[in-house]
Amino acid sequence: MPASHHDVVGIGNAIVDVIAHADDAEIERLGLSRGTMTLIDAETAALLYDRMGPAVEVSGGSAANTIAALASLGGDGAFIGKVSSDQLGAIFRHDITALGIRFLAEPGHGGTPTGRCLIFVTPDAQRTMQTFLGASAELTPADIDEAAVAGARITYLEGYLWDRPAAKEAFRKAAKTAHDAGRLVALSLSDPFCVDRHRADFRALVEHHVDVLFANEDEIVSLYQEHSFDAALQQVRHHCWIAALTRSEKGSVIVSNDAVHVVDAEPVAAVVDTTGAGDAYAAGFLFALTRERDLATCARAGGICAAEAIGHMGARPEASLARLVTERLG
Amino acid sequence: MPASHHDVVGIGNAIVDVIAHADDAEIERLGLSRGTMTLIDAETAALLYDRMGPAVEVSGGSAANTIAALASLGGDGAFIGKVSSDQLGAIFRHDITALGIRFLAEPGHGGTPTGRCLIFVTPDAQRTMQTFLGASAELTPADIDEAAVAGARITYLEGYLWDRPAAKEAFRKAAKTAHDAGRLVALSLSDPFCVDRHRADFRALVEHHVDVLFANEDEIVSLYQEHSFDAALQQVRHHCWIAALTRSEKGSVIVSNDAVHVVDAEPVAAVVDTTGAGDAYAAGFLFALTRERDLATCARAGGICAAEAIGHMGARPEASLARLVTERLG
Repeated sequence: MPASHHDVVGIGNAIVDVIAHADDAEIERLGLSRGTMTLIDAETAALLYDRMGPAVEVSGGSAANTIAALASLGGDGAFIGKVSSDQLGAIFRHDITALGIRFLAEPGHGGTPTGRCLIFVTPDAQRTMQTFLGASAELTPADIDEAAVAGARITYLEGYLWDRPAAKEAFRKAAKTAHDAGRLVALSLSDPFCVDRHRADFRALVEHHVDVLFANEDEIVSLYQEHSFDAALQQVRHHCWIAALTRSEKGSVIVSNDAVHVVDAEPVAAVVDTTGAGDAYAAGFLFALTRERDLATCARAGGICAAEAIGHMGARPEASLARLVTERLG
Repeated sequence: MPASHHDVVGIGNAIVDVIAHADDAEIERLGLSRGTMTLIDAETAALLYDRMGPAVEVSGGSAANTIAALASLGGDGAFIGKVSSDQLGAIFRHDITALGIRFLAEPGHGGTPTGRCLIFVTPDAQRTMQTFLGASAELTPADIDEAAVAGARITYLEGYLWDRPAAKEAFRKAAKTAHDAGRLVALSLSDPFCVDRHRADFRALVEHHVDVLFANEDEIVSLYQEHSFDAALQQVRHHCWIAALTRSEKGSVIVSNDAVHVVDAEPVAAVVDTTGAGDAYAAGFLFALTRERDLATCARAGGICAAEAIGHMGARPEASLARLVTERLG
């Protein structure tokens, strides 16, 4: 399989999720900011883990989750991200390659352990994430496989990469390589606090370097510091080719120049854990886009994948997304 | 908390489960024996893992699962088993101590990694287990905390320990220590193939050293090489104080000298993964026994815990068993 035939190359943090149930009192006692992602150091991660309930380990990482879901849809994906040569790194590598995904970055050997994200899932299925980036923070421009990026239809980047200078440079290099080859660049804004940290950079990126933008309501409102979703939507509509704006149970809104598509959310039997809903949405959307479906169909494919993700603990798909999407969209 | 007040001390293999979905064709292609536990070496574990689909990691181990469920019931438990000082060992330690369980054995430092069990769950919710014992095989009599065992109401041993000579000696030491202190010894037969490997030893144990025996239909039939469950039941009824014989959807049968209690299975909404059903049953039964409930109530408590275990992936409880049992039994 030549590198030039990937549908999507994802670039992001390589993370193993450590997921536990928690009640609201526990979130408060631990001083956590509900529903967001916070970066923590190794020491804080160890302290928090000590105070966390029994957990389950599942491979995660935002862009990695998207590529995993893309593979479950039948897409051809590759992933670039750094793990360590430890047991958690072996788990991450296994889980992504077992899906037929090419895992491109060399593992770090510097002794920094593989990154992990402590996820506290409250009874309302909301997730509160505390991330120790570990080895994934060691991503540099040298890790960007230019042939793979230049050959892929879409290069998909997570906003979280912007939290580290070297990863930011890797991000820039990947975006330039993709565009120089006439390919598409997609970005997920990741988290409203991540947008807060990098607002000016993200605005410039969206205006000049991003073809397909994924953001939820909080993120797009934060990006433009607007007071309403509609006002933020008016700002973004001429900044990139496609903006796919997700609104949880209200579905998603796709804007592309003068076109606006409002698409309902897919039905879900029971919302168990919202971890990875946005990542899965991006996978469905991008997969349909590479198959040249219209934008409303891309949004429905995204919604179907998001509905699967929130029906169970963990972000990675537990059912064949190809089957689910074929059943509903044909 | 003095060591003398544990309800149950569990002794067994300290294992992290690696759980993946698999279809029947995959089980056949890999040459696995459906529904049983097979011991494998490190090399085979690595080969099988390479061929396994994306997985989820959850702490496991038969007796450890039982003690985890006992803690969820509100019981006071301790666990003796060996992990390594690696990342999987840290996960096992975290998950058991986060439940308030005392974890008594010192970790091994010899370089043997923490044991793991590759579990393939087929669409019928049956599990096929391939276990690399790793550090858990290094349990020796020196790891048996005599004060804890002598002080606990019940010492609970898994039959799997019998697969290694040093662990077998640890088992014997624990049983003797418990009996010398006037305490109860409980045993789970673990697996029909484990019974095949050690039939004569297990018969002698049941006759002379075990007060409370847990076995499923296949195991008790294998122990006595009988052709029917009823014939095996007649054999075991005078060999130990209590035999709790589980029969999956047919519930369980408790025999104690002349008394026989036939107890229905508890209702389950959807059977997802039968891993740990027997371990959870033993927890419910032993917890009720330490609370001096009658045998039929002990069996119902066991059934309630087993029903919770088979409703989700993984063996460890995801809901508060104390609440479930109180709701149904008062």
